Amino acid sequence: MQPRIGIIMGSQSDWATMAKTSEMLNTLSIVHDVTIVSAHRTPDLLFDYCATAQERGLQVIIAGAGGAAHLPGMAAAKTALPVFGVPIKSRVLNGIDSLLSIVQMPAGVPVGTLAIGDAGATNAALLAAAVIALHDPAVAQRLTDWRQAQTERVLSNSDPRADA
Amino acid sequence: MQPRIGIIMGSQSDWATMAKTSEMLNTLSIVHDVTIVSAHRTPDLLFDYCATAQERGLQVIIAGAGGAAHLPGMAAAKTALPVFGVPIKSRVLNGIDSLLSIVQMPAGVPVGTLAIGDAGATNAALLAAAVIALHDPAVAQRLTDWRQAQTERVLSNSDPRADA
Amino acid sequence: MQPRIGIIMGSQSDWATMAKTSEMLNTLSIVHDVTIVSAHRTPDLLFDYCATAQERGLQVIIAGAGGAAHLPGMAAAKTALPVFGVPIKSRVLNGIDSLLSIVQMPAGVPVGTLAIGDAGATNAALLAAAVIALHDPAVAQRLTDWRQAQTERVLSNSDPRADA
Amino acid sequence: MQPRIGIIMGSQSDWATMAKTSEMLNTLSIVHDVTIVSAHRTPDLLFDYCATAQERGLQVIIAGAGGAAHLPGMAAAKTALPVFGVPIKSRVLNGIDSLLSIVQMPAGVPVGTLAIGDAGATNAALLAAAVIALHDPAVAQRLTDWRQAQTERVLSNSDPRADA
Amino acid sequence: MQPRIGIIMGSQSDWATMAKTSEMLNTLSIVHDVTIVSAHRTPDLLFDYCATAQERGLQVIIAGAGGAAHLPGMAAAKTALPVFGVPIKSRVLNGIDSLLSIVQMPAGVPVGTLAIGDAGATNAALLAAAVIALHDPAVAQRLTDWRQAQTERVLSNSDPRADA
Amino acid sequence: MQPRIGIIMGSQSDWATMAKTSEMLNTLSIVHDVTIVSAHRTPDLLFDYCATAQERGLQVIIAGAGGAAHLPGMAAAKTALPVFGVPIKSRVLNGIDSLLSIVQMPAGVPVGTLAIGDAGATNAALLAAAVIALHDPAVAQRLTDWRQAQTERVLSNSDPRADA
Amino acid sequence: MQPRIGIIMGSQSDWATMAKTSEMLNTLSIVHDVTIVSAHRTPDLLFDYCATAQERGLQVIIAGAGGAAHLPGMAAAKTALPVFGVPIKSRVLNGIDSLLSIVQMPAGVPVGTLAIGDAGATNAALLAAAVIALHDPAVAQRLTDWRQAQTERVLSNSDPRADA
Amino acid sequence: MQPRIGIIMGSQSDWATMAKTSEMLNTLSIVHDVTIVSAHRTPDLLFDYCATAQERGLQVIIAGAGGAAHLPGMAAAKTALPVFGVPIKSRVLNGIDSLLSIVQMPAGVPVGTLAIGDAGATNAALLAAAVIALHDPAVAQRLTDWRQAQTERVLSNSDPRADA
Repeated sequence: MQPRIGIIMGSQSDWATMAKTSEMLNTLSIVHDVTIVSAHRTPDLLFDYCATAQERGLQVIIAGAGGAAHLPGMAAAKTALPVFGVPIKSRVLNGIDSLLSIVQMPAGVPVGTLAIGDAGATNAALLAAAVIALHDPAVAQRLTDWRQAQTERVLSNSDPRADA
Repeated sequence: MQPRIGIIMGSQSDWATMAKTSEMLNTLSIVHDVTIVSAHRTPDLLFDYCATAQERGLQVIIAGAGGAAHLPGMAAAKTALPVFGVPIKSRVLNGIDSLLSIVQMPAGVPVGTLAIGDAGATNAALLAAAVIALHDPAVAQRLTDWRQAQTERVLSNSDPRADA
Repeated sequence: MQPRIGIIMGSQSDWATMAKTSEMLNTLSIVHDVTIVSAHRTPDLLFDYCATAQERGLQVIIAGAGGAAHLPGMAAAKTALPVFGVPIKSRVLNGIDSLLSIVQMPAGVPVGTLAIGDAGATNAALLAAAVIALHDPAVAQRLTDWRQAQTERVLSNSDPRADA
Repeated sequence: MQPRIGIIMGSQSDWATMAKTSEMLNTLSIVHDVTIVSAHRTPDLLFDYCATAQERGLQVIIAGAGGAAHLPGMAAAKTALPVFGVPIKSRVLNGIDSLLSIVQMPAGVPVGTLAIGDAGATNAALLAAAVIALHDPAVAQRLTDWRQAQTERVLSNSDPRADA
Repeated sequence: MQPRIGIIMGSQSDWATMAKTSEMLNTLSIVHDVTIVSAHRTPDLLFDYCATAQERGLQVIIAGAGGAAHLPGMAAAKTALPVFGVPIKSRVLNGIDSLLSIVQMPAGVPVGTLAIGDAGATNAALLAAAVIALHDPAVAQRLTDWRQAQTERVLSNSDPRADA
Repeated sequence: MQPRIGIIMGSQSDWATMAKTSEMLNTLSIVHDVTIVSAHRTPDLLFDYCATAQERGLQVIIAGAGGAAHLPGMAAAKTALPVFGVPIKSRVLNGIDSLLSIVQMPAGVPVGTLAIGDAGATNAALLAAAVIALHDPAVAQRLTDWRQAQTERVLSNSDPRADA
Repeated sequence: MQPRIGIIMGSQSDWATMAKTSEMLNTLSIVHDVTIVSAHRTPDLLFDYCATAQERGLQVIIAGAGGAAHLPGMAAAKTALPVFGVPIKSRVLNGIDSLLSIVQMPAGVPVGTLAIGDAGATNAALLAAAVIALHDPAVAQRLTDWRQAQTERVLSNSDPRADA
Repeated sequence: MQPRIGIIMGSQSDWATMAKTSEMLNTLSIVHDVTIVSAHRTPDLLFDYCATAQERGLQVIIAGAGGAAHLPGMAAAKTALPVFGVPIKSRVLNGIDSLLSIVQMPAGVPVGTLAIGDAGATNAALLAAAVIALHDPAVAQRLTDWRQAQTERVLSNSDPRADA
């Protein structure tokens, strides 16, 4: 089956975070591809990837990047598809540099930015699923079920001392 | 025509920013509604608004909020639709509080966050349009045309001294 | 005995911090309940909890939350009782996100915010006790005794080298 | 009538902010006093003020301070009454210094901290009123009415364009 | 004469700052070109500009950008020439976002970053001149003379009260 | 009379702040000199100034600087006299850059740092006066009198509403 | 021999840092005392300590504190002696809270602030020694010798690879 | 062979980072020297080093420094050669202090600043190589080859799961 979501990241080390995106998409049975492509080290590949994304059937691009995190913004510059960005927690500044580099895009080229690190990586998948769900009732149902199960897990474990 | 995008904001003063979202949606001829609803002062209204959003035909919710900006996150807690958040520039901390309150959502409940202030308000509309465009060729065409015109405006004014 | 203070937190992981609140209330013999309730994953439970807090006999709500920490503010939106918030130290931004999300509430809906982490969790209990003490001489006496003992512990160990 | 709440601040210039506290207490008909007392320039007066606060009938102290804002914390060191702190927006760092100096109290001596600036000043009054309301049904009623009126103001002005 | 330095910036509004770069290069009689090229709105033009920079005779590229400032880093991705970046003071975050987006480049693709705003724009010209001066004795002499004159201006006005 | 305190600053624009230091020293009748000397533009003058400070009779050096504020630290590198630093409020980052550049000195070369801006400039004079006062009873008396008068000014204007 | 410098700190845990101050004073053979005194938990002791400091022969007070670090500023409020403050690295915010709480004193009551943590603790001793040295030639000589030895240690180990 | 690039750093501990600069220059076969010279502890050596750098044949100075990082800026004050600065990750503030102290230079004395820590150290070498390459075809070829190899390494490992 043709991938509907493309996950990209700048380096192998980002996979530790972006694997959460892939896991959540797998949980929701949404076919996706996963590629290392660097805005700085492989700019031509990035441009090709994004320029052909729509014709390859992608509906959403999720880009994870750290530090001077240019990958999501440059992807958004080269495609009209929705782009979601995940700031990777950086070694020196904890990802505040990644967050600002991704979220502070100028008017005209949007990136929907998620939380720094693992939570953001998981949520990028959920947000992309919400987009897919608008026109795919099966995904919509799986997403609703997942959200409901999440709520029930909290409701059924409401006393933190139980576990302590 | 039934609105496809709902724009919400916490107070009248946020309209100075969120009007940019409405203007861009108008430019792209996307029907939307605009409502003041406060997470803190009208929490029940917020819950009703979000719980019924899908059945009213909304496909995306865009929420602008400042300070301890809880509106986008609480909207996302009550709907499975995609929610995009716009951090309003706050008076004392310039919107860094708004940004962190919106973007740092826990795993499970995503908000796609845009830039602080006017740029983010415009981009929320463009990102919502990109979502709508996935299944609406007319919106897709208008979005592509708008992006192309934007590129051409830069290309045809490449000497900053011309204007100085 | 009916609880007089309700401690709430968004997830099991917050208990590592919020246990300090419970311990200090136990030290002062103030009956309290402890519940996991998430603003984002169980919003309806949160609204029910807060809307019925007063009739259940609660006098103060203490809410601990991290990241985009909406729990204290949303509790304050749904009850007229005093609400105190404890910013949990977050993994990526050390709790500065939690602090700003809790403290920067708009005019009209107050949250009394304590320090980030363990110190704040302990102090939320002491502040709640000070409120209870206004009309409960036994609690007032225990609080005064505890403060006096704390002062004496410092006074009787004034040479740091003794221990070194 | 004897004041029930004491508002203190470090200098005349803080009154521009702390007047909001006094106005809201007046709106709720809660008798209070207002005093300039500086932790740094009149430390002995501060100690006297706080040490005698309870016997003078005060139930809550609200302290506004800016920069290295020591007033709320030193008040809390000298009284067992609940102390709420309002960070004044400072000229150079916008009040982030004031906020951290007030909120980051060590375990043992709590200050319930409100938002930076005017919103925090208003909310300190509302939080103090919530404390008073626990044992004063007339204040409780006025506070409930005020909150209800606030909600209704938002509900009756839900279209931001009406005003634009 | 063929330009030796290329000044690029993302939008007309950046010219208010980047004009300082051009003025200083004029003072030192270094021929340069000035172009608006946006990483986000004209990514293909940026790639062409940088890929052909060396063959057009450029020796240094100076890029000014604000917010999620991707221009300097993407220029550096597409040329082996030295690239210097000037963070433009942004409206909401004062340029701290611009600075981090420019300076925090990953290992492998360097951008030499200057101060935020006008000082950085002037210094980018001086740093580029220092590079040119390594192999151009006339530029070296003009740079040395300019630095000497600057020192003398301070030495001859050492009493600030003279002017007051 | 020979100056006992040397005030230095990097540029004419710093005088708007550093004049507060001079005014307070005048109030306390402490003879001082005032000189513009730039760490970056006149490094040799700075080294001469500091290396000869002690033999010229100076007892304290007060240095004001902004941005990458190297003046106080480099003065401290070249003299064994006490050096106090005043961070000037910078245009883009409000002086947080100045503060960190002055205060974060490595072990071995201390700078006693005051608050950012006018308050710090005034306090540098008071701190230098406290040092001089250790061995000059007349200065000690004037400093004590000034502090007492300051306290009395607060005590005699304790109602902020008087002025409003 | 009577102590000439008083080192104070808020809790036993601060000794890990403040021991550096004591060690450096010992290296320079300057007699000093070391006391735990907390602004918040033992405010009366702090006031007594500072009010009697001068008559006990102290010439400088060095105060180390973390978080909402009120100790140095409150010491300065109660004595005309020079007060130097050392921001202790805090657990959650790395000492930026401590730094701002110490350095941002209002005009009228100065604290000379050193670097966060160990470097600042060592430098507080060196700065106090520089003050003592103004009227004590033996201390002046030891301080000069120490600084000279420090310089020579760097000069004699100028190749970092030697050690690698 | 005469060194063409001088690497300087303030202390032995900085070598852990600055070794990356030396390694990359070795990879590109560019002869360089490496010296510990401290702006604060050996200011005279720093001035001599920089004043004679050009006559000794250096073409670029790379300076690494942490905390109140004055080394790059003071080097730039004493030489007309291009100076590149590397902010060392500091223990307490993660290098944000180092970054601001290096990058925020006043107009007139530029320092081209790289990323905090190891990435910046590597990139300082690459940027210096780009400067050398302008007039040295062999270095230009080695730099181009290195960049090409870097691109190929990413292209040939584009699936992050391969390694997981």
